[in-house]
Amino acid sequence: MNFSSKLLENAVAEFAKLPGVGPKTALRLVLNLLKNEDSEVENFTSSILNLKHHIKYCNKCSNLSDDEICGICLNSKRDHETICIVEDTRDVMAIENTNQYFGVYHVLGGLISPMEGVGPSDLKIDQLVERIKENPPKEVILALSANMEGDTTIFYLYKRLKDFNLSISTIARGIAFGGEIEYADEITLGRSILTRVPYENSLIK
Amino acid sequence: MNFSSKLLENAVAEFAKLPGVGPKTALRLVLNLLKNEDSEVENFTSSILNLKHHIKYCNKCSNLSDDEICGICLNSKRDHETICIVEDTRDVMAIENTNQYFGVYHVLGGLISPMEGVGPSDLKIDQLVERIKENPPKEVILALSANMEGDTTIFYLYKRLKDFNLSISTIARGIAFGGEIEYADEITLGRSILTRVPYENSLIK
Repeated sequence: MNFSSKLLENAVAEFAKLPGVGPKTALRLVLNLLKNEDSEVENFTSSILNLKHHIKYCNKCSNLSDDEICGICLNSKRDHETICIVEDTRDVMAIENTNQYFGVYHVLGGLISPMEGVGPSDLKIDQLVERIKENPPKEVILALSANMEGDTTIFYLYKRLKDFNLSISTIARGIAFGGEIEYADEITLGRSILTRVPYENSLIK
Repeated sequence: MNFSSKLLENAVAEFAKLPGVGPKTALRLVLNLLKNEDSEVENFTSSILNLKHHIKYCNKCSNLSDDEICGICLNSKRDHETICIVEDTRDVMAIENTNQYFGVYHVLGGLISPMEGVGPSDLKIDQLVERIKENPPKEVILALSANMEGDTTIFYLYKRLKDFNLSISTIARGIAFGGEIEYADEITLGRSILTRVPYENSLIK
């Protein structure tokens, strides 16, 4: 692109580093920011710098938090004997939105991926094992994505956790609510037949 | 959304103000920024602040520029007797990319839009008239979008400029190259028949 200004070009190049933002979208976003008042642009940049400089990871569950211990881990009304293991903070938000889970979390910060050079030591797995040793929970729920990295991580976690006296479960996989059987992929459909549940158990209590 | 951190929530809210960025995309962008090194995040924010605080508008053509006069207006090899009138800097970039135009520009900074409360005095139209009075060009090309705001602006500019001794043209409208006639809308197709050009003129010289 032929930029009329080096300042504009730099800002567009920085925006275009964001995932899913190409040069044209970056230019649109930058020109939109430029239309705002100085104070609004400063609010935008300072909110990012504040986040980057002051965000903490909860000492117990490694979720993003403003304090040393996050709100969920501090909440005495939650069930601290059930730990749901998730990839990142977005999964915590998604599960919290369901209003169906009242235990606590452990955020791994990623999934094991040999292709991208992410091994078990890059994730918060040792902290999880320490946490379980100190305060053994009754149940651990593995709520990881249903792809190769997720399955690899589940298998590794199962090996690390199986000798503790706790039940290990994974979230159910199958046809989504509203999903039509004829459009489901064969693997999901096949597995949902093999892991069928008694009708009484499928009803929401 | 249930944010675990107020800092995160603020940054996401700021990103979600950008056009076409919803809360989920904003969260994805913010978490991606958070993964970067401090220095990279500071480069990102300082590129925006530098742009906002130091960008200038060219004194002649009102295009975005690092200096008082932009590179195109300073270029003595360009034809200063032809002025192409465009809405914003993106249109300058699009026309420069064609490598078919060698005159100079005048950037209006928007289009007349009574619906959005944008009148002629909000645009750089008076500056254009002054510029033409001082240095009368031979031709003015109106390269504005083919919508209601564009047509309104073209009509207004025509009224302001018609008493000067210069030729006023608009860019050609018609079926795009690669476009198929059966899929063209009726207005474009109808106008492209009415404004048909002799075959010899349609060949690129």
